[in-house]
Amino acid sequence: MPLVRISMLKGKPAQHVQAVCDAVHEALVERYDMDPRDRFQIVEELDPDGLVFDRDYAGGPRSDDFVLIGIRSRSRSTEMKEAFYRRLVERLGEKPGLRPQDVFVHLDCTVELADLSFANGVSAAELAKRYGRGR
Amino acid sequence: MPLVRISMLKGKPAQHVQAVCDAVHEALVERYDMDPRDRFQIVEELDPDGLVFDRDYAGGPRSDDFVLIGIRSRSRSTEMKEAFYRRLVERLGEKPGLRPQDVFVHLDCTVELADLSFANGVSAAELAKRYGRGR
Amino acid sequence: MPLVRISMLKGKPAQHVQAVCDAVHEALVERYDMDPRDRFQIVEELDPDGLVFDRDYAGGPRSDDFVLIGIRSRSRSTEMKEAFYRRLVERLGEKPGLRPQDVFVHLDCTVELADLSFANGVSAAELAKRYGRGR
Repeated sequence: MPLVRISMLKGKPAQHVQAVCDAVHEALVERYDMDPRDRFQIVEELDPDGLVFDRDYAGGPRSDDFVLIGIRSRSRSTEMKEAFYRRLVERLGEKPGLRPQDVFVHLDCTVELADLSFANGVSAAELAKRYGRGR
Repeated sequence: MPLVRISMLKGKPAQHVQAVCDAVHEALVERYDMDPRDRFQIVEELDPDGLVFDRDYAGGPRSDDFVLIGIRSRSRSTEMKEAFYRRLVERLGEKPGLRPQDVFVHLDCTVELADLSFANGVSAAELAKRYGRGR
Repeated sequence: MPLVRISMLKGKPAQHVQAVCDAVHEALVERYDMDPRDRFQIVEELDPDGLVFDRDYAGGPRSDDFVLIGIRSRSRSTEMKEAFYRRLVERLGEKPGLRPQDVFVHLDCTVELADLSFANGVSAAELAKRYGRGR
């Protein structure tokens, strides 16, 4: 279970937006042990007034292609987190062609299975008991 | 203190949106020990490009009525969480008539009272000291 | 690293929105030990249907100037949190002139350095090892 929120400036072509979503998902599957079918993503497109970011702090220079990516999931090892970050910027660089400087990621690794219900009013903990381990 | 964020596809009638908000709040009051007056909700309506979800993973089949509901609050017992999930899909089924398959919920139970200020620059911890226990 | 999300009703002048952003950032720098350059903020402007809030619970009376401010960062002491809340309502009162009753804040203090990448596919933990302690 990753829940992904991607924030970027308004006005990009639909293919750009979709390529960002695909790249994030593929990097999660390849390096973060996510099931390919486990895909839940929100894209938030903002006016310049609504997305304020320092162009140079702790990285950069950042451009108007800046993306801020938040991912909620159960925790992973530091090694997996770092491998995921590296793969993510590679993937985003291939398509839609983002510069690594424009990729900001934060993970929220506080999710317990009981804190999640995919559907039907049943917790993921209960689902895992019935069908095997959850991710 | 629950902070609720509800994400859904754009284009639903206002009564639909409001019924979703009401159902979430009522289920929190009925099964999650929330004060009826403690209501803070954000609804985010998204284009199809902005709300990506697998139609079948760990539940489903999901439809265009899919709602993703996030709730931040202090923690509760696993029993209360599971009772809340069950009641929530019941309530949403009654009105606006959502199918249980379309209800995705995640809880964020990391809030401490000191991490919250309802108003006036005073933390909820301080408020609780003055007026009794917070939720 | 603070990640700030500010939610308010749609329709405020651009200067109002920007003054809110500035006030939040300045209070973080003055009372929460943040680097002035470490600024990443999202503003979400919502229709009345999309921002539901109790006018009186645990504070208030709240008006249509209500702002809900969420801040993700590494943790601070309770004293710093409370000093930040106080300074924030002062700052917002000076400009754009918000009433303290309209300022709701929640902190999310669960961030570890390994859970963050400012840019370039490198975790903030790795960055801190190279260049000194992160915030």
